[in-house]
Amino acid sequence: MSPLFVVNFKNYVPLKDEAKIAGALENHASDLFDTMVSVPSPHIYPLSRELKIHVLGQHADPVAGGAFTGYITPRSLKEVGAAGTLINHSERRVTLADIAETIKLCKENGLLTICCSNNVSTSRALAALSPDYVAIEPPELIGGDIAVSTAQPEIVENSVKEVKRIDAKVGVLCGAGIKTGEDVSKALDLGAEGVLLASGVVKAKDLNAAILDLVSGFEL
Amino acid sequence: MSPLFVVNFKNYVPLKDEAKIAGALENHASDLFDTMVSVPSPHIYPLSRELKIHVLGQHADPVAGGAFTGYITPRSLKEVGAAGTLINHSERRVTLADIAETIKLCKENGLLTICCSNNVSTSRALAALSPDYVAIEPPELIGGDIAVSTAQPEIVENSVKEVKRIDAKVGVLCGAGIKTGEDVSKALDLGAEGVLLASGVVKAKDLNAAILDLVSGFEL
Amino acid sequence: MSPLFVVNFKNYVPLKDEAKIAGALENHASDLFDTMVSVPSPHIYPLSRELKIHVLGQHADPVAGGAFTGYITPRSLKEVGAAGTLINHSERRVTLADIAETIKLCKENGLLTICCSNNVSTSRALAALSPDYVAIEPPELIGGDIAVSTAQPEIVENSVKEVKRIDAKVGVLCGAGIKTGEDVSKALDLGAEGVLLASGVVKAKDLNAAILDLVSGFEL
Amino acid sequence: MSPLFVVNFKNYVPLKDEAKIAGALENHASDLFDTMVSVPSPHIYPLSRELKIHVLGQHADPVAGGAFTGYITPRSLKEVGAAGTLINHSERRVTLADIAETIKLCKENGLLTICCSNNVSTSRALAALSPDYVAIEPPELIGGDIAVSTAQPEIVENSVKEVKRIDAKVGVLCGAGIKTGEDVSKALDLGAEGVLLASGVVKAKDLNAAILDLVSGFEL
Repeated sequence: MSPLFVVNFKNYVPLKDEAKIAGALENHASDLFDTMVSVPSPHIYPLSRELKIHVLGQHADPVAGGAFTGYITPRSLKEVGAAGTLINHSERRVTLADIAETIKLCKENGLLTICCSNNVSTSRALAALSPDYVAIEPPELIGGDIAVSTAQPEIVENSVKEVKRIDAKVGVLCGAGIKTGEDVSKALDLGAEGVLLASGVVKAKDLNAAILDLVSGFEL
Repeated sequence: MSPLFVVNFKNYVPLKDEAKIAGALENHASDLFDTMVSVPSPHIYPLSRELKIHVLGQHADPVAGGAFTGYITPRSLKEVGAAGTLINHSERRVTLADIAETIKLCKENGLLTICCSNNVSTSRALAALSPDYVAIEPPELIGGDIAVSTAQPEIVENSVKEVKRIDAKVGVLCGAGIKTGEDVSKALDLGAEGVLLASGVVKAKDLNAAILDLVSGFEL
Repeated sequence: MSPLFVVNFKNYVPLKDEAKIAGALENHASDLFDTMVSVPSPHIYPLSRELKIHVLGQHADPVAGGAFTGYITPRSLKEVGAAGTLINHSERRVTLADIAETIKLCKENGLLTICCSNNVSTSRALAALSPDYVAIEPPELIGGDIAVSTAQPEIVENSVKEVKRIDAKVGVLCGAGIKTGEDVSKALDLGAEGVLLASGVVKAKDLNAAILDLVSGFEL
Repeated sequence: MSPLFVVNFKNYVPLKDEAKIAGALENHASDLFDTMVSVPSPHIYPLSRELKIHVLGQHADPVAGGAFTGYITPRSLKEVGAAGTLINHSERRVTLADIAETIKLCKENGLLTICCSNNVSTSRALAALSPDYVAIEPPELIGGDIAVSTAQPEIVENSVKEVKRIDAKVGVLCGAGIKTGEDVSKALDLGAEGVLLASGVVKAKDLNAAILDLVSGFEL
């Protein structure tokens, strides 16, 4: 299975700019990695029907359906073409019971689950819930200039070790501060099976140069 | 201005069923009232581009844009064709500061705002924030068989009076338990400028009969 | 009725230091103003039985009693000697429906209610719920060096005007950045019926000097 | 170490009734088990200084101290005599990141941590955070008439097995529906190291009889 290259668009830019950035990411897609963009829920439908790369949600609620006004069900994400979703991002934390139920409902709906953690012990706890991926992102490094794989390589290494000890089928993504191909390559060296990043692409001054540099990290 | 006929789809049914119900509502549209459907955020785009009746969101977050993963910005609702949004529904309560900021951002984005309240005093408080509409829905009547306009007409009447005293430009919708044309007509008689309902349409055994009955309430 | 001099201890210091600060405040008590300290809920009992000045909670939940583990009921605040409580502080925002219900329960329990707002329109909305006081605290000024009464006198003035227009019995407190007697005096001049402050006392280098200066603002 | 007999008072009764119930529990204390009562935070001080049995909080926030109005810090629980606290009770769920940080702060303050879970997978996740105890309480059985140890013995058995596999030092408590000595004895047989209950004691018609029956479950 190819390593993941997940770009979280947050709510940084309008839909039309998301389409441009996603297009650039698609142009640089390759067999060496699996590109995914995570977008605001209203944008999933218009983006997923234009793109070949996978589109993810940014959050889902632990609800199958019913009298839940304003909730984002896994079913509704699937209906509009999402391939999966982030869960428990540091900007949208949810309760442990909700994470467990959301993972279950996503699996029933054929959605990939990427659960965000902030340290080794929460990575381990998430692994116990068997999502597809745990994305380790120390909050103090998010949006910063130093990648977690450089600043705190032991967090990535230990997260990989502990996650695999709990459930070997759960993958680990490396997030927070990833900006260059070297950051990506270092993350993979530490045992990560992909990266999760945001500003490194969305706020890049030269979009194509930034993507080219980042994806170079997947080439051996 | 025509009274509002707002149907909240909650997360009761899949997208394809929402499309059917919305189609039936559109078939019964009229100049006597303004039909709107409130749908899960991922469904706004696919529904709004097929429908002539207005599509609303069910919730919006008080955020213009930025590093807010999993948030629903008013901007993103507008981009996908929403005409407005519910705010503070009883199934998705938000803080007072968030309601105020969300109303402000919705106005900047040209979105209609319908804020839900549960009694006369919260109706009055919401009026002080000058949304387009306050929808009064006593929680104990939501999803039930008796309309608020029948069970507690004084709540509707007093909400109208108090809301107008605070800000005469704010409209009042009557919600909770509305199921028949008589319920609608009674609500309008009490001073409401429309109705907000959900199960009365979405869970109706005979969809067209239910809609026909309901809209008859708008014909004096 | 005397203007209020409310000091919010937040969770800045341990209980024994709270006792010292409260003692200093008590030493400077006077008929010209009514001193109150707002403390963490576990500390209300040990402080209220030692002090003559009023002790307030910092938050209460909208629950009379029952199966609500981890909730702070107005009843429990009353039982341990609280004279009232803050509600909806900017560090502990709650939903509009919860504010309304909490005020109601506090009144039933004979507790004074001080609801925090962040601008003129939320001050107005809170006034519609008829608490004893609305405390206006623009979040960007909290903990800062410039008092709201100096930085944005029009917010205080307009809050007073709008609150009184909604319910003349609701008092207005001026919060955020209050540090000197001049700040206090200016707040009273703008129509405020007291002040709510925190770091200006709790983090003062010279506690007695800070209190002496502040209370001088209440003298004529 | 003795098995735990933890009674959660929720917010069922006023302080003076809590004192009576706690007194009855103290009268039936024994070396065979360790009796603890979990009480609303304002009540910890008045109860802990009168009782010899341990007093626990019902919730704690992941905050060491500072500008956090309305938060319950582990430090403040310790200061008023708490021996520990419940965390993540089904009526007061918190985020995964908050559970992890709260456990850490409680340990630094010498407080016992009992984290509530709702099924086997969340029990396993909590074990990964190394609290002192995980209390398994399927929400659908809380407050009911059938004990989890009778209704779903495999949940208790599997929780014990999985928790120990993750961290052998973490104990497992059995909650939800425990009402009789037989329920207690069955829970211990399934590997639980104590019980967590509420209505079985607090709402008992004959308080002393209920306690006598329950504690008989700890004998042999």
